[in-house]
Amino acid sequence: MNKIYVIGMGPGREEMMTREATKALDESDVIVGYTVYLDLLGERYKDKIKLSTPMKQEEKRCRICFEEAKKGQVVSMICSGDAGIYGMASLMYEVKKDYSDVELIVIPGITAASSGAALLGAPLNHDFCVISLSDLLTPYELIEKRLELAAQADFAMAIYNPSSKKRFDYLKKACDILLKYIEPERACGFVRNIGRENEEVKTCTLLELRDQQVDMFTTVFIGNSTSEIVDNKLVTKRGYPVERNE
Amino acid sequence: MNKIYVIGMGPGREEMMTREATKALDESDVIVGYTVYLDLLGERYKDKIKLSTPMKQEEKRCRICFEEAKKGQVVSMICSGDAGIYGMASLMYEVKKDYSDVELIVIPGITAASSGAALLGAPLNHDFCVISLSDLLTPYELIEKRLELAAQADFAMAIYNPSSKKRFDYLKKACDILLKYIEPERACGFVRNIGRENEEVKTCTLLELRDQQVDMFTTVFIGNSTSEIVDNKLVTKRGYPVERNE
Repeated sequence: MNKIYVIGMGPGREEMMTREATKALDESDVIVGYTVYLDLLGERYKDKIKLSTPMKQEEKRCRICFEEAKKGQVVSMICSGDAGIYGMASLMYEVKKDYSDVELIVIPGITAASSGAALLGAPLNHDFCVISLSDLLTPYELIEKRLELAAQADFAMAIYNPSSKKRFDYLKKACDILLKYIEPERACGFVRNIGRENEEVKTCTLLELRDQQVDMFTTVFIGNSTSEIVDNKLVTKRGYPVERNE
Repeated sequence: MNKIYVIGMGPGREEMMTREATKALDESDVIVGYTVYLDLLGERYKDKIKLSTPMKQEEKRCRICFEEAKKGQVVSMICSGDAGIYGMASLMYEVKKDYSDVELIVIPGITAASSGAALLGAPLNHDFCVISLSDLLTPYELIEKRLELAAQADFAMAIYNPSSKKRFDYLKKACDILLKYIEPERACGFVRNIGRENEEVKTCTLLELRDQQVDMFTTVFIGNSTSEIVDNKLVTKRGYPVERNE
């Protein structure tokens, strides 16, 4: 049966990919992906056929994979981070409904919640949630509701897509929602260009976060009630005090 | 300056580690970790010094790392999954307060939310949360509260540590909480022994999940309101219908 790998390539640096991902790419005839990610692949894959579509033409990009696979090519669809976290795995399964004779193999990768956390210290390390501030495919009211509930749940949070040109004030709006439930001194931080050129790592309070300039290559972290900034690292405790009668 | 790598080794299979993690282990004189994980490392690292402590002696395990580093050894602390997601990164930073002259370098790995999702299909793929049902370091009431709020937020969920010998009925109790907010037909699934022997992948409804036998090597996934089971895969849509006036 023809098969397509759906690969999470991690933040971008080749050594942050798993060996499983590298092997799948080695084996592939055709690599499909958004051009920014194809460009990150580097020398090792320079002789592969590379196919792409512009942003917002993701479904077409998926169909290209299946059409190439039908021709007998081994195909890889690459995504940044993890293919199953705001990646193409879901849409590939949607499109697969029209192509019953092709098998999908999802190869996980390091998502920004993990790679960004590693640079900041240990900001998650307990129950957490991941929320994207992009309202392209999510009603804005639902994003607000999730922020409200996540704050009440004392989840540590990783916030993806905190800003874009159109949504320049979304992080500020999100912080204002969180500040209804969380003290302004809450330990937070953010990471930009993880594993790429001009990597930037910064800790701050929730109130300071409100006025940070961030972009679509930034991942923001909100600590939970146990988090603290130690030596410029954002560290969330691995647990809470628990009374035991044992 | 002496340094310690805190390494997420992913689910266990060596090819699911990043090259960065492999390189750090290659470079290390001493590898510290829970015995189960040390055993997973295999032949490649058979000549390294390996040190361990039993479960619940995690702090002692961390101190061993720093003491070895002080002697001038290059040390790696290994964790399953990601070092910053219920891993040792946080505790290492705590213990580091007593060892100012040692540098910590966290190397992220594939956590079960990613590796389990890849096997199940695309169960997360939008905003999600990760909740551990272990009440060893978390008051049980907080776990319940998080489940309640996560259900109301329509988060897809990855549930870690769904059960143990002592906590044999915790998944059932968690499902009963979720069933207060979520329809019994909600698409769910679970994965056992990810990337290891006797790997098992299963989709089911939330109501069916309630009566599943799971263990501490199982990761459970709860779909959101858009999730469906297609061809035995659990797939969450990459977005919601959004009205646009553009």
